[in-house]
Amino acid sequence: MTTSTREHILACGGRIIHHKGFAATGLQEILQAAGVPKGSFYFYFKSKEAFGLALIDHYQVWFAEQVRPILKDENVPPLERLAGFFLWFRQYFEQEGFIKGCPIGNLVQELGDVNPAFRDKLNGSLDGLIRFITRLLQEARERGELPTRLEPEATARFILSAWQGALIRMKAAAGPEPLDTFQGMTFEVLLT
Amino acid sequence: MTTSTREHILACGGRIIHHKGFAATGLQEILQAAGVPKGSFYFYFKSKEAFGLALIDHYQVWFAEQVRPILKDENVPPLERLAGFFLWFRQYFEQEGFIKGCPIGNLVQELGDVNPAFRDKLNGSLDGLIRFITRLLQEARERGELPTRLEPEATARFILSAWQGALIRMKAAAGPEPLDTFQGMTFEVLLT
Repeated sequence: MTTSTREHILACGGRIIHHKGFAATGLQEILQAAGVPKGSFYFYFKSKEAFGLALIDHYQVWFAEQVRPILKDENVPPLERLAGFFLWFRQYFEQEGFIKGCPIGNLVQELGDVNPAFRDKLNGSLDGLIRFITRLLQEARERGELPTRLEPEATARFILSAWQGALIRMKAAAGPEPLDTFQGMTFEVLLT
Repeated sequence: MTTSTREHILACGGRIIHHKGFAATGLQEILQAAGVPKGSFYFYFKSKEAFGLALIDHYQVWFAEQVRPILKDENVPPLERLAGFFLWFRQYFEQEGFIKGCPIGNLVQELGDVNPAFRDKLNGSLDGLIRFITRLLQEARERGELPTRLEPEATARFILSAWQGALIRMKAAAGPEPLDTFQGMTFEVLLT
C-alpha cells in the first residue's frame, strides 16, 4: 500500500509535469490529481526537488517496461528491433496528439542548467539509452548488417540526438512529420 | 531611444530566460537586470506572454546576425559553409561552458504544448532554419557535392533535429561530446 501510494503520486504528478513542465506545475496540482493530502506527499518526498528526482526513475521504469518486449525479441534482426522501438513511440505520440515530447528531454531543457543533481541523473538516463542503441548496432555489426562506414557508439549517440531533436520539432509542429522524417532518414538512409 | 530601451529589455530578459527558462524567470528579475521600472516594461510589452513572443523575434535576429557572414560567403563551397555555421555555435557554446542550449528549442520544450501562439511562432522559427539548410544542400546538389542518396529537404529536417537533440544532450553532459559527435556524423558520414 505505501509503495503504491508513492507510485500513484509519481504517476499523477508525472503526467502533469510531462505536459506542463516542472516549474509550472504546483504542488497543489499534484496533490489534487493524486487525491492525497500534503502530509502524504511529504511522507514520501522530502521536497519538490526530491519528487522530481524520483520522477526521473519513474519515467525510466515506464520507458523500459514499454519497450522491453520489442528489444528482447531475438527472432527479429537487431536493426528491425531498433526501428520497432522508435515506431512504438511514434504510435504513442500519435495517440497523444503529437505533443508532450520526451519527459527526460523536457526535464533536461528545463532543469539541466540550473540544477546539477537533475543534470547528472538525466545525463545518466540518456547514457542508458545510448548504451541500448549501441548494443543493437554492435549486434547488427556482428551479423554483417551495419554499413562498415558506421562506428556503433558514435552512430548511437547521433541517432539519440536526432530522435530527441525530432521530438522537439514534433512539439513545435504538433504533427507526425518530424518523427516520420527521423524514421526514414535513420533506417532508409543512415543505416542502409 | 524608445526602440533601444525595448531592445535592452529584450536582451537582458532574454539572457536570463535562455538560462533559467520562461516560467522560472520572474518579471521582477527582468526589470532588475534591465534597470527599468515596471511601467517601462508594460509600455513596450502588454504582458509577459507578449514579451516572450517578442523574444522569439529577438533571438532570431541575433541568430541571423551571427551567422549571415558565414552563409553569404560564396567563395566557400555550400557544405563547408554549413559546417562553418555549426562550428560557429560549437565555439559559442564552448565559451558559455556547454550549457543553456538553443533558446528556441528551450522555449519549444517549455511552452510548445501549453501555448499555441508560442508554438506557431517557434515552429516558424525552426522552419526558417530548415529552409536555410535546405538551400545550402540544394546548392551542393547542383554542384554535384551531395551524395545522390540524399534528398535535400528531408536531409535538412533530419540535420536540424540531430542538432537540436545534440544541444539537449550537451546540456545534460555539460561538455562538447554531443556537438562533436553531431559534427563528425553529419559532415564525415551522412553528407559524405
